[in-house]
Amino acid sequence: MSKIVLLLEYDGTCYHGFQFQANASTIQAELERALHRITGRVIRVIAASRTDAGVHAKGQVVSFRTDLDYPPQVWQRALNSYLPRDISVRKAHRVEDEFHVQKQAVSREYCYAIWNGPYPSPLRARFSYYVPHPLDVEAMNRACSCLLGEHDFSSFSPLPHPRPVRKVFRAEVREKGRMACFRVEASSFLPHQVRHTVGALLQVGRGKRKPEGLAELLRARTPGLAGPALSPQGLCLLRVNYPRPLEEA
Amino acid sequence: MSKIVLLLEYDGTCYHGFQFQANASTIQAELERALHRITGRVIRVIAASRTDAGVHAKGQVVSFRTDLDYPPQVWQRALNSYLPRDISVRKAHRVEDEFHVQKQAVSREYCYAIWNGPYPSPLRARFSYYVPHPLDVEAMNRACSCLLGEHDFSSFSPLPHPRPVRKVFRAEVREKGRMACFRVEASSFLPHQVRHTVGALLQVGRGKRKPEGLAELLRARTPGLAGPALSPQGLCLLRVNYPRPLEEA
Repeated sequence: MSKIVLLLEYDGTCYHGFQFQANASTIQAELERALHRITGRVIRVIAASRTDAGVHAKGQVVSFRTDLDYPPQVWQRALNSYLPRDISVRKAHRVEDEFHVQKQAVSREYCYAIWNGPYPSPLRARFSYYVPHPLDVEAMNRACSCLLGEHDFSSFSPLPHPRPVRKVFRAEVREKGRMACFRVEASSFLPHQVRHTVGALLQVGRGKRKPEGLAELLRARTPGLAGPALSPQGLCLLRVNYPRPLEEA
Repeated sequence: MSKIVLLLEYDGTCYHGFQFQANASTIQAELERALHRITGRVIRVIAASRTDAGVHAKGQVVSFRTDLDYPPQVWQRALNSYLPRDISVRKAHRVEDEFHVQKQAVSREYCYAIWNGPYPSPLRARFSYYVPHPLDVEAMNRACSCLLGEHDFSSFSPLPHPRPVRKVFRAEVREKGRMACFRVEASSFLPHQVRHTVGALLQVGRGKRKPEGLAELLRARTPGLAGPALSPQGLCLLRVNYPRPLEEA
């Protein structure tokens, strides 16, 4: 048996998230269907970070095991010819059998894109969230600094979680013209954590919450307390980081 | 009566082009439907550049006449609340009644986006054309220089045209990472001219045609002779230029 790891890009608009669901199209189902068409076998894939319905990925990492001995480039080409246009294999690697895409990941990086222009933008609508009000990005960045380090993020997820402590390595809002991007890197995330965080940050940006308010939210440890969860189309899984590059895993 | 000019952005993916067609959704039909819902009247709009099915716009310019005396911002807000999400009014202006969006335009600028990465990219697929082969962008730019100035562009349109001479002010391919953008500005364009031009340029980029081959194509004046017309999703109308800014028209 050999283990293959895929680096995936997808437009999540038409999917009910990564994970398999009966009677709903998901990224996992499309991948496993393509693998079945290539191999004639039922093959299960595992993802490093399960993205929600409507969330995109530029650098999702998934793995599967197979008894077929194709070189990685053959897997890439074969999958890309069977996958729908909104899912693509950027790269494929053969890895050691002990390598686990979830357990060995040291961090995940997400980006949430906000279009803050004076009109709704159809060319950006598929991959960003529209905020017409002016935003105080400096205040949002001060709020971001409260998130750095190890915290109990219970308030930033809708439901209680058995292990709510996560470590945030980076959190910042960068502007490029009228686009604002919240970029965050953490050990891993609670369900909906990034979208709740951006919801709270937008309250700060609009002057409805103080930057220090995010520290209070962390202390409160109350599921669902932080901001409204923003809609998924602005969110994109950028990267999953491992101790060594995937080429050497 | 007053005349209103709108600066429009749209994602053309789901439309059969700008111009009204019976039994097909078009940008014009959506605009006129929204104007009818706002005013209760039948109002016709005119566009500066008629985009084809599937072509996008960042800066289309349209006008209409009305006996209603709303300020331009009211037209913008009202239209944006009635238009579908893939069409948006970036700005509205009141202009002199003599102003004509087509006749007074001095040039139109289009961009054709090419994704030239090592895998098909779902996050770029809606607004670009995928070319997996390496491209000689320098040769493409040499070919672009043949297009500058006044020429008979018959070979770059599928059907004969009564006035095939156009003036090209700018034509170049710029790279940004693995994206290549062909940007062209001309007095106006023959039908499908930009997509035929990029088809011919890609032949140059792949070494299948010499850069000087574009000068030969111009001289041949044979409808449909130049390259295959590329698919519309890479094309976007960027700007329409007038002797004075629209604010002062």
